Amino acid sequence: MQGKMKISQLGEFGLIDALKKYAPVSKTVIKGIGDDAAVLPYTKDKYLLLTTDMLAQGAHFTLRMPPRLIGHKALACNISDIAAMGGLPTFAVVSMGVPKDLPVRFIEEVYKGIQSTARGFNISIVGGDTIKTDKIVINVALLGQVEKKYLVTREGAKAGDGIFVTGPLGGSLKSGRHLNFTPRLAQGRFLVENFKPSSMIDISDGLAGDLNHILRASRVGARLDRASIPRHKGVSLSHALGDGEDFELLFTLAPNKARKLMDWQAAQKVFYFYPVGTITANIKERIYAKGFTHF
Amino acid sequence: MQGKMKISQLGEFGLIDALKKYAPVSKTVIKGIGDDAAVLPYTKDKYLLLTTDMLAQGAHFTLRMPPRLIGHKALACNISDIAAMGGLPTFAVVSMGVPKDLPVRFIEEVYKGIQSTARGFNISIVGGDTIKTDKIVINVALLGQVEKKYLVTREGAKAGDGIFVTGPLGGSLKSGRHLNFTPRLAQGRFLVENFKPSSMIDISDGLAGDLNHILRASRVGARLDRASIPRHKGVSLSHALGDGEDFELLFTLAPNKARKLMDWQAAQKVFYFYPVGTITANIKERIYAKGFTHF
Repeated sequence: MQGKMKISQLGEFGLIDALKKYAPVSKTVIKGIGDDAAVLPYTKDKYLLLTTDMLAQGAHFTLRMPPRLIGHKALACNISDIAAMGGLPTFAVVSMGVPKDLPVRFIEEVYKGIQSTARGFNISIVGGDTIKTDKIVINVALLGQVEKKYLVTREGAKAGDGIFVTGPLGGSLKSGRHLNFTPRLAQGRFLVENFKPSSMIDISDGLAGDLNHILRASRVGARLDRASIPRHKGVSLSHALGDGEDFELLFTLAPNKARKLMDWQAAQKVFYFYPVGTITANIKERIYAKGFTHF
Repeated sequence: MQGKMKISQLGEFGLIDALKKYAPVSKTVIKGIGDDAAVLPYTKDKYLLLTTDMLAQGAHFTLRMPPRLIGHKALACNISDIAAMGGLPTFAVVSMGVPKDLPVRFIEEVYKGIQSTARGFNISIVGGDTIKTDKIVINVALLGQVEKKYLVTREGAKAGDGIFVTGPLGGSLKSGRHLNFTPRLAQGRFLVENFKPSSMIDISDGLAGDLNHILRASRVGARLDRASIPRHKGVSLSHALGDGEDFELLFTLAPNKARKLMDWQAAQKVFYFYPVGTITANIKERIYAKGFTHF
């Protein structure tokens, strides 16, 4: 559209040409499908991040679970995605499919869970949609932002890099941890601001599966020191490798930074980062474990 | 987080304080829940827009409907929301709940419908989520942007303003038009660039219901010239007022602009805007028709 031109200056045919196609926004996708969040143009120094996750009754939760935790999880798994890019969350929209015969109280509690987690992470819920469904479905889309210099994707891992996780793994679904986990946003920010990981992802499909996402994107291999993989109490190695929904961060660090992180860590008790292996140049060194699949 | 400070400069307790709370993004919501899209801070001259819509098998579509049109609708109703703010769409994320036994072909066609509409409106699909559900659920979250000077909300209608719609109304669900409508993005842009409506909304709940949204937000009343309400063939006045999912734009214009629009319109054949009534100062003048309800 020729915004500055007066209507009177446009003849009928000029108008037809002008209106056939409004001038669309010219835009570049920095990173689309295939990472924890999309990376979009924003300001000179920052990128916009956008991610979405859908939870469904039956697949991810049941009516016997506390509705506030269901709400928490719906937002928290999106926050985990923003954390995995090195970013900070900002605004969210929430869609909910609700069965006719569900007590209103249940949905109110789900919303309270979402709102409480939003407050805790300084996120504003700015819109949504509510429709009728047979079973509960919750979709959250979350915006975030990240300084360009802090952006971390799945792509930068290099041979020799150390591999780390932010906490013990496995048994998340069985134990109920998948409902009340704390997304590792503080750890993600600490890392990008002080150590700048070469790659990062959140563990939703299981350590093996998500490490393979990094290996594929970075065109490298990995060796895990299986004995050093931190596990929750009573969890076997294969479950620590294969269970999903841990929502810990998995990241890689250049060798000198990996050493510094370990030195720093020896002197404090704020966070603990667990070294679990090393990136190799051999792309055939993949990590085998039956990953948890959402489908 | 104190990004510039060296790790070594922070003692253990300094670190604990620093890490307890990463510094969250400071941000202001320009407009949250309660309009067609959220209005968020962006650049000096532009706002960011964010909207979301969920469609469910059974409530909005059946498996006998063409899957490409289902995909089209899932994106198009979001585009309509961005159009109603005077904006242009940019990036979308798509979540889909899919039954195990559904032919893959069906979902492929839904995606093709989404992609084809995205291309037509210069939108990039930048991410999504796929989960298992008993019935198909599709959620789209759409980003857009609007120049600050072009933003139109539901709030600005004033006594004396003319009320307009962009096309004939009613019978959308019965006729199948709700599946293959064209969102009025070109009309929305034409209006904000040349006439700057005082308020605007897209008609999803029915003319009466959506006009009442404007009246409530603007604290005004309205009189409709019922004979002038454009209707689709075979549609009664009460259906034109009450049926939902027309996805036409409903807007108000200051009296001098309303006259100019009518003059312009008399000389061209590109768009047609239908005058349907006048805004009044009496907030008791609400429009009564049983609006279509999504719930």
